[in-house]
Amino acid sequence: MISNKMKTLVANSSTIRAMFEEGKRLASIHGEENVFDFSLGNPNVEPPKNIKDSIQNILNSEAPNLVHGYMNNSGYEDVRTKISNFINKKHNLNLSLDSIVMTCGAAGGLNILLKTLLNPEDEVIVFAPFFGEYRNYVNNFDGKLVVVSPDIDTFEPNIEALKGKITEKTKAVIINSPNNPTGVVYSDEAMKKLAATLLEKEKELGTSIYLISDEPYREIVYDGVEVPYVLKYYKNSFIGYSYSKSLSLPGERIGYIVSNPKMDDYENIMAALNVANRILGFVNAPSLFQRVIADCLESEVDINVYKKNRDLLYDYLVDLGFKCIKPEGAFYLFPRTPIADDKKFCEDAKQFNLLLVPGSAFGCPGHVRLAYCISYEKIKNSLPAFGKLAKLYNMK
Amino acid sequence: MISNKMKTLVANSSTIRAMFEEGKRLASIHGEENVFDFSLGNPNVEPPKNIKDSIQNILNSEAPNLVHGYMNNSGYEDVRTKISNFINKKHNLNLSLDSIVMTCGAAGGLNILLKTLLNPEDEVIVFAPFFGEYRNYVNNFDGKLVVVSPDIDTFEPNIEALKGKITEKTKAVIINSPNNPTGVVYSDEAMKKLAATLLEKEKELGTSIYLISDEPYREIVYDGVEVPYVLKYYKNSFIGYSYSKSLSLPGERIGYIVSNPKMDDYENIMAALNVANRILGFVNAPSLFQRVIADCLESEVDINVYKKNRDLLYDYLVDLGFKCIKPEGAFYLFPRTPIADDKKFCEDAKQFNLLLVPGSAFGCPGHVRLAYCISYEKIKNSLPAFGKLAKLYNMK
Repeated sequence: MISNKMKTLVANSSTIRAMFEEGKRLASIHGEENVFDFSLGNPNVEPPKNIKDSIQNILNSEAPNLVHGYMNNSGYEDVRTKISNFINKKHNLNLSLDSIVMTCGAAGGLNILLKTLLNPEDEVIVFAPFFGEYRNYVNNFDGKLVVVSPDIDTFEPNIEALKGKITEKTKAVIINSPNNPTGVVYSDEAMKKLAATLLEKEKELGTSIYLISDEPYREIVYDGVEVPYVLKYYKNSFIGYSYSKSLSLPGERIGYIVSNPKMDDYENIMAALNVANRILGFVNAPSLFQRVIADCLESEVDINVYKKNRDLLYDYLVDLGFKCIKPEGAFYLFPRTPIADDKKFCEDAKQFNLLLVPGSAFGCPGHVRLAYCISYEKIKNSLPAFGKLAKLYNMK
Repeated sequence: MISNKMKTLVANSSTIRAMFEEGKRLASIHGEENVFDFSLGNPNVEPPKNIKDSIQNILNSEAPNLVHGYMNNSGYEDVRTKISNFINKKHNLNLSLDSIVMTCGAAGGLNILLKTLLNPEDEVIVFAPFFGEYRNYVNNFDGKLVVVSPDIDTFEPNIEALKGKITEKTKAVIINSPNNPTGVVYSDEAMKKLAATLLEKEKELGTSIYLISDEPYREIVYDGVEVPYVLKYYKNSFIGYSYSKSLSLPGERIGYIVSNPKMDDYENIMAALNVANRILGFVNAPSLFQRVIADCLESEVDINVYKKNRDLLYDYLVDLGFKCIKPEGAFYLFPRTPIADDKKFCEDAKQFNLLLVPGSAFGCPGHVRLAYCISYEKIKNSLPAFGKLAKLYNMK
């Protein structure tokens, strides 16, 4: 009785559930401490201590009907003012609160953006490897996902391949930097090339092509790398931001969209985002946590925990002979698999109690994703299992 | 550049914004204390005191990564168990946690339900007067809203009219009791008739017709009235529940769907709801507030505040000659307008600084909605304005 669209989605979701069940099965046989689950992007680092203090301050100092009540569907005005000021200071911009819409995480933000922009059959371009949910989000509004093949030597956006994919139907391009699954941070040069290409195509086709930068990992970066701010590169640009990773609050569903005020049709787009937030059923981003994050804009989780994990796992895998780009951000490694069939590789890994996600799930076969947002101890204990897996393929 | 669907929606939303602006304009001229805004369903009663205590207990006793982390997209298992036990005890049922999906309020719940059920062109029946957002929710998934004309003498569902509206394309019927905008609570008899009619039509057409009961006002009832529990009347039934009104937490976006485990295609529907919650961008209902409401299942706001408001305003309006059904629940009055043109009536009301919503917005012209979830003082002060409005129409 469920809709045709959902039939396919439920079938796919059972694969994920099967993986989860497999993990539980392995844990029941070998003990949970001996199963090494690298499959989930669920942050293990604790939220900063001041989150709790902030909640308590708010509950003690503000009226309950303000803290837990309805507000403008785009969010509290004071919260949006604080966020725009914070962005302006950090990136030397001049945004007002009107450019900010508070959202239920980045996922909520991307959905209201796509609802705002897409007519059926409109095309949305993504660069492989890409976060698999983009396909579902675009499908929610009957758009068509167009995938640009990866540059597996750099995992920067493949600009030459992009040029061939842009058509009159191209409504948006989604990028994700720091990237899930590669951990790559797009360079200033890559962003300039991307912006120039889109601008050129806009002129050529007489259309507007919106660039959506999905940035839940913006603050999770290592070795002092800078993440370019897309609003400074391209007029028709949005950022979907989330506090899920920067403050380890993924369950609270809190983030925002920021829109470049210079974009085409800016006023209508902002009005539409407000309406879309309401009618898709979000109504507004959760109210208490709007106030909490406004209070904690300078806070961050302890990135060093992730960095230590990255260094340990990356060095070990490279030593074993895995070919892998050293990630500058996020908490994923995306090495090549020693055989072309990444699904078989993941199956093989299970005999050593390693749970990994095939690159195919990100539109990039021949690779595998490892989420290292788990305890250092666990990663250390998993290393012999990776050794055995490498040996299975006679690596090195 | 915005989508065609959104163009219409943005145009409509500017009417609401215009009303809001008008309120601000009137307040700037006459002073805020002299403007009587009955247009918003924003609860003014404070949340119960133990909400704050519960938040503090949770923060002090549970691990932050549990409180603020990801969980199953359908919600924490312990929370869903507590809710199902609570329902079982209250309504003498035997539900398990598997029948519960935690949602971002009732609005989030209705959207994932409609995403789960609707193919394009599927029909969803509502009874006028109805909450205007249903039209948008159905439109999100390209369904067709079918409106059953009201029984303006009782505002119970018009069963005879319903029979003529059910077709092979009817996928769902949405009811809302206690009702926004009428305040009517559907009787046991009405529910039995409704269930019998749907069952008969299911047999006749060989289809499944799902009954969705939207119940954000379930706990807001007066004079000891009982709200029938739809799962006890009809097999193919869902309830969309929200804590927005019962605990005055509308900004926190917390509610749930409960599904009748006996319904057709139950397993697939539950799997689809889980997936829809994820891919529409909710991911999960806000995590801290899942834990809070599980802690406060027995709590309620002080309903007497609303009852006092109802009695004051209802008695006064009836005395003035307004024809109105005495509401047994929710916090709205829905009197007939003394002229057929309810929009003109609302325009006229503005000269006395009264902000009201025309019944047309709920598919029921010739009526007007007054939201009495504002302070008693304000209502008392507004009475002379209603007197002047009645006089304008030579009532009595």
